[in-house]
Parts: sequence; C-alpha cells; structure tokens
Amino acid sequence: MPVISLLTDFGLKDGNVGVMKGVIWRICPQAQIADLSHLISPQNIAEAALVLFRAMPYFPPFSVHVAVVDPGVGTARRPMAARIGDQYYVGPDNGTLTLCLARAERLGQAVMCIHLNKPQYWLEDVSHVFHGRDIFAPVAGHLAAGVQLEALGVSFSDPVLLPLPRPERTPLGWRGEIIHIDHFGNVSSNLRIEDLPNVLKHKEKVTVRVGGLEIHGLVNTFGDRQPGEAVALFGSTGNLLVCVVNGSAAERLNLKIGDPLEILLP
Amino acid sequence: MPVISLLTDFGLKDGNVGVMKGVIWRICPQAQIADLSHLISPQNIAEAALVLFRAMPYFPPFSVHVAVVDPGVGTARRPMAARIGDQYYVGPDNGTLTLCLARAERLGQAVMCIHLNKPQYWLEDVSHVFHGRDIFAPVAGHLAAGVQLEALGVSFSDPVLLPLPRPERTPLGWRGEIIHIDHFGNVSSNLRIEDLPNVLKHKEKVTVRVGGLEIHGLVNTFGDRQPGEAVALFGSTGNLLVCVVNGSAAERLNLKIGDPLEILLP
Amino acid sequence: MPVISLLTDFGLKDGNVGVMKGVIWRICPQAQIADLSHLISPQNIAEAALVLFRAMPYFPPFSVHVAVVDPGVGTARRPMAARIGDQYYVGPDNGTLTLCLARAERLGQAVMCIHLNKPQYWLEDVSHVFHGRDIFAPVAGHLAAGVQLEALGVSFSDPVLLPLPRPERTPLGWRGEIIHIDHFGNVSSNLRIEDLPNVLKHKEKVTVRVGGLEIHGLVNTFGDRQPGEAVALFGSTGNLLVCVVNGSAAERLNLKIGDPLEILLP
Repeated sequence: MPVISLLTDFGLKDGNVGVMKGVIWRICPQAQIADLSHLISPQNIAEAALVLFRAMPYFPPFSVHVAVVDPGVGTARRPMAARIGDQYYVGPDNGTLTLCLARAERLGQAVMCIHLNKPQYWLEDVSHVFHGRDIFAPVAGHLAAGVQLEALGVSFSDPVLLPLPRPERTPLGWRGEIIHIDHFGNVSSNLRIEDLPNVLKHKEKVTVRVGGLEIHGLVNTFGDRQPGEAVALFGSTGNLLVCVVNGSAAERLNLKIGDPLEILLP
Repeated sequence: MPVISLLTDFGLKDGNVGVMKGVIWRICPQAQIADLSHLISPQNIAEAALVLFRAMPYFPPFSVHVAVVDPGVGTARRPMAARIGDQYYVGPDNGTLTLCLARAERLGQAVMCIHLNKPQYWLEDVSHVFHGRDIFAPVAGHLAAGVQLEALGVSFSDPVLLPLPRPERTPLGWRGEIIHIDHFGNVSSNLRIEDLPNVLKHKEKVTVRVGGLEIHGLVNTFGDRQPGEAVALFGSTGNLLVCVVNGSAAERLNLKIGDPLEILLP
Repeated sequence: MPVISLLTDFGLKDGNVGVMKGVIWRICPQAQIADLSHLISPQNIAEAALVLFRAMPYFPPFSVHVAVVDPGVGTARRPMAARIGDQYYVGPDNGTLTLCLARAERLGQAVMCIHLNKPQYWLEDVSHVFHGRDIFAPVAGHLAAGVQLEALGVSFSDPVLLPLPRPERTPLGWRGEIIHIDHFGNVSSNLRIEDLPNVLKHKEKVTVRVGGLEIHGLVNTFGDRQPGEAVALFGSTGNLLVCVVNGSAAERLNLKIGDPLEILLP
C-alpha cells in the first residue's frame, strides 16, 4: 500500500490536515497516511527541513512526503515535487528540501525536481491561500496512485536552498550551534558524529560547553546518569545532544535555537 | 475503502480518540480514519459545526463524519445519523449539523435524519458519559461497512439548529462578526464571497474595519504584503479573513469570536 | 487488517511518531495504526499504564499495542513483548503493563511475556536512545505481519510491576485517591464500581468528599445538573469521577494526582 506523510505548520485544531487526507483518499483510497508533525513553528521552514530530513530514511520505498510550511503560498514561489533516491517530496520550492538534498549529494542518490504546472492533477478550484489542499494533496494522491513524477510538470535544477549553519574548527575542537529543541527539552546541535570520528574513542575525555556549563565526558544514554544531571550524547540521528536526565536542558540552561555549543577534544 | 472522519473536543492526551478507532476497526477493519480535530474548545458546538462544514465537501463520496462535541451526553438529546448529499454524519442532535444543513438547502442536496434507536448497532454496554465510544463509533463502523442508514433508527425532520449570526447591510456596506480564529491567529468572519459579488471587481477600493483598524484594499494572499502588515482577503472556503502576514491578527488586534467586522464598499 | 496502537510521551512536534509508522509500514504495509496518546507526561509510566488499561479491551483481537514511555532506554531494562488474552503489548519492561496484568489475573486471561533478544526482528542499527523506532516499531510490525510472539525472544515470568494505590476501608466508607485528570479537568479516582457494589442502590444517599467539598448523591451524567455544578459519577470505565458540569473540577477544586477522595456510604 502506498505511504504518504504530512508535515505542516497548520496546528491540529482547525481541520485543515483532515481535509488534506480527504482530498488524498478521493484520488488514492488505499493510501496509508502518517502525520509527521503539524506543530512546526509558523513559517519555520528550517524546522520543517530538519524533521523531514530525520524521517525520510525510515519510510518504505516510494513514500510521498508532503510538506507545507509555505509563507509564500499564492505568490511566485514554485510548487514542486521531487524524487530523492527512492522517496518523493511534494510541496513548495522554498528550502524545505535543503538537508535532504545535501544528504543525497553526499550519498550519491539520484535527484529529480519537477515544477508542478499541470492543473489537471490539482483540484478544480485552486485558492490563493491553501495549496496544501488544492495542489499538494491531490498531487501526492496521484503520485501514490502511480502517476509518473515527470507527468506532473517540467523538470528544473535550481531548487531553493536554505543557508546551513556549518560547524567551525576551533583551536581545541569544534563550535556548532543549537538547531532543534525537542518536546522533552533536549537540545540538538549541528555537530554530527561523522564529522567527529575520533570522539567515540575518547568519550570520557571530551568536554561539551553550552549555556555556561561544562559537561565532562559523553554518555550512551540518559539512564547512565542520575535524574536531574546534565549529559551530552549522540542522538538517534547522529547529532550531538545536550539533555537533562528526566528533565529539560532547554529550560534548565535557558537555551534557544542558534545558541553556540562547543566540543573540546582531548 | 470506506472513509471515516472524527471531530471531538476530547483533546489528545487521554486515549479516548484511539479507543473510538479500535471500536470502529472491530466492525469495519478496512476503514480509513482521518482526525479532523480533537481540540474543539470544550462543549463548543458552533466551532465543531464550522470545522465540519469546511471539511465535508473535500471527502470521498459516502464518507462518514463522526462529530462528538456532546455536553448533553446521556440526557434526552437524541443520538442521530444523517445523509447530506453523498456524505454521512453520526453524532448528537445538538446543532453540529447547522451549517451543513443550511448549505444542503442552498444547493438542493437531499437530507435524511435518523434518530439512532437500534441498540444492536451499538456496543453491548452503553455508558452514560461516552457515547462516542459506545454508540457513535460503532454506528459509524456499521455505516462504513455497508449497513443502510435507514436500518439504524427512525427518521425525523426537526434536527436541532443553532442560531446563526447573519451579516447586516449598513449604509456603506456590510457588518458581520468574527466566527473563527485559526492556529495562526487569522480571523475569519461570516461575510462570504457569494454575498458580496461586486467586491472582487473593486478589490483595491474596499475598506475593512476591525478592532479599531482600517485596512484598505483586499489582497489575494499573505505574500502580497510585507511581514507584519495587516491584510484582508477571502480565505480558502470563501470567508472574509483578516490576517497579519507571518503573524497573528487575533493577538495584534486583540480580537475574539463575536467581535464585529465591517466591509465598506466603494 | 492488523491493528497497531501507539502510546508515547514523545509529543507531536518532532516527527518521532511518524517515523515509527514509517518503520512499521516497511514491515507490515497493511497495518492500521491508531495513536492512543503521545502527550503522556514525560517519563510518567503510571499515566501510560492507565491509558493502555482503558483502551485495550476496545481493540480488535490480535491488536498490537506499542507503548514507549521509556526513561530507562538503552540501559539494562528489558525490551519486551507480551500476549494478554487476545491482545499484544510491545515496549519496555518497566511497569506499563501493571494494570493490564492485574486485570488479566482477575479475569483469568492467559499471559505470556517475552524478553526481546532477537535482533533480526529489529532495525539493523539500534541507537541507544530511540528504541521506539529501532526495536519496538519493527517488532510490532513483525507481530502484525504474523510472526509468532515466541519467535521474538525468550519467555520470562517476572515483569516489572508498579505499586498500585489501593483504596482503604474507612469507618464510613472508602478512601481512594485521584489517579487521572483528563483534558476537560474531570478527576478520576481509584475507587471502582466493582468494589462498591451497593453504591448504585443508594446513589442519592452517598456523599463524596474531595478538595474540601462534599458532593451529595451520585448522578448518571453531566447534564443531570446545571453548568458550573460539581457532580460525582461513575465514568465510562467504572472509576468514580468528580466533574464540574461544562467546567474543570481540577481547576475549580485545585486538585492534583494523588490527592485523596473519599466516599461515605449511607
């Protein structure tokens, strides 16, 4: 059965996500639909890009990921679809794919981007303000039902990319920044395990500096320390995290997106 | 595959919505189930009526919409099901259908209302306080599985209707009121595009007054103005909206449901 | 079609629940998946135990319930699966099953617990911090797809159990405590209808004491009293509730989990 995921900043109270599912099932009645998140901060494309990047590898081949964080809806910004490896994307061309495209390049995955310009695959009436319902949901339904990506529009090769904060080498290690704060208050940085290959050999000798605190050594998991203690570890998608065991690091250390985080190597 | 939507004020933390899905799948294992909203303000039937009204036209034929905003559960209020055009409703007879019935009359859609009184289509034990689980979910499952509407009870013709705030003609235009505030803080009024047929020809010449502000001209979409600017436009279901680009109009203008909103025609 | 339910403290904004669905559908594409709750208070195993206990009986035979409230993830705590009557559980061995196991004993349902130790049923790479994705979702997918429970590991007979607050006999009745506060602010106690068999015969003569208030008589449902009035009644799963009609008892009476609640018999 075809799988579709939905990722928006629509919230959960107004019914707009349910409407998109209704539209999809009119076109592809057997589609399995998973909500990734509808609580992306309003208009925060970078946050959507990160959630999509983390989720995509875990979905079945040929899944269709619809992401609608779309402050430019109804303006000149392109509606698009794409194939990245064996996964599909449908949504605005506004940078939501930035991290997925960077990974595709790193892994040598094939990429094809299509500017959606065939209204026969959209709802008959297209509003100016809800392309999630009127363009992206029906296009996702058609893709899931077997329509070829290439039939949906014309290809292009310059998708919008967000600037990505890159870690910097420092005399003693690396300086990155906080890129996500999760539901528990765990903070996630842009320092990734593949960029710090020697760290795992010296886990007890590194130091992580964040929010005025120095954390000595890395742990494997939360339960390695007592409740209330601040710990640093690599998260389930390879980013360096700072957490408070059974608590919120973001609250305790008063951290926010963009704050610096540094790792000192031995 | 049959489609069912769920709309409640149950919230998302207690498991009650999941229980309704379990009950439905015991009866109709192949049903596709979409959540419309479970964050309707507690006991707010008018809000549920609006979300249902906006969603229903986008669902596949023969979809079953279960709406349980039900302060009268377990009292004399009737449990009901209905067919409106090619869509089904299951829930209390308390006004949730008001807007859908008004539209059906406008469009000449056939309507049939059934008082649910056949316990063989309910769970064996019916509690006094959770008819969503004990009556409405099983009835929806049976409808989705092919049971005829007429088999579920006896027809009636006087469903409860909510009083609807109607726009008023003023010397210079129309006065309506705010009927919904969405997740982004966009405010939606009861002034609808079909009631203001000449407005679209003079979009730049109309003025919208709300919360002490005058907004000159209508735009097509948010991105037509700069972030932070207040704009007026017709939303994706035809209602006149007031929004702040990339911000919250409700917060900025301190607006709430029921506040007046006026449009001045040229 | 096989049914799976998901119950976590992951929240709804980070995409982790959607990722679990992607993993499940890679293994069992036709699984129907219901969210029970993802808003369990962080690390609150007792709350998850209660939501699971209430939901399980309403699901189709052979449903698989995945519950991941897992502060001990990646430590020595056992990953487990279980069969309880005709339902399956997958998650950590940390007490989440306590109430379901107590009921199984009361009802004479067969129980089998399995320590998950066959990595061929997990994702290839298992992180230290997200077993919901790496172990429990794939195991649930395999169970739903027809793999035998016994194939997933070795059986054990000493699952972790939480201490359960038991009601106490008092000279005039029973004293229990508040074990749940729902989305509406209704408070639920551990006084259950089967422990108070004579109460239903004398509903108008009992008194409920909670938060400094005495409520005389039990009602059947909210609508039996006026909005704003405090009422006591048996809820839809048999627990004694205290509610404020169309309001929040928890807020009005300033109640929290663990607060005492007493019933005085005639």
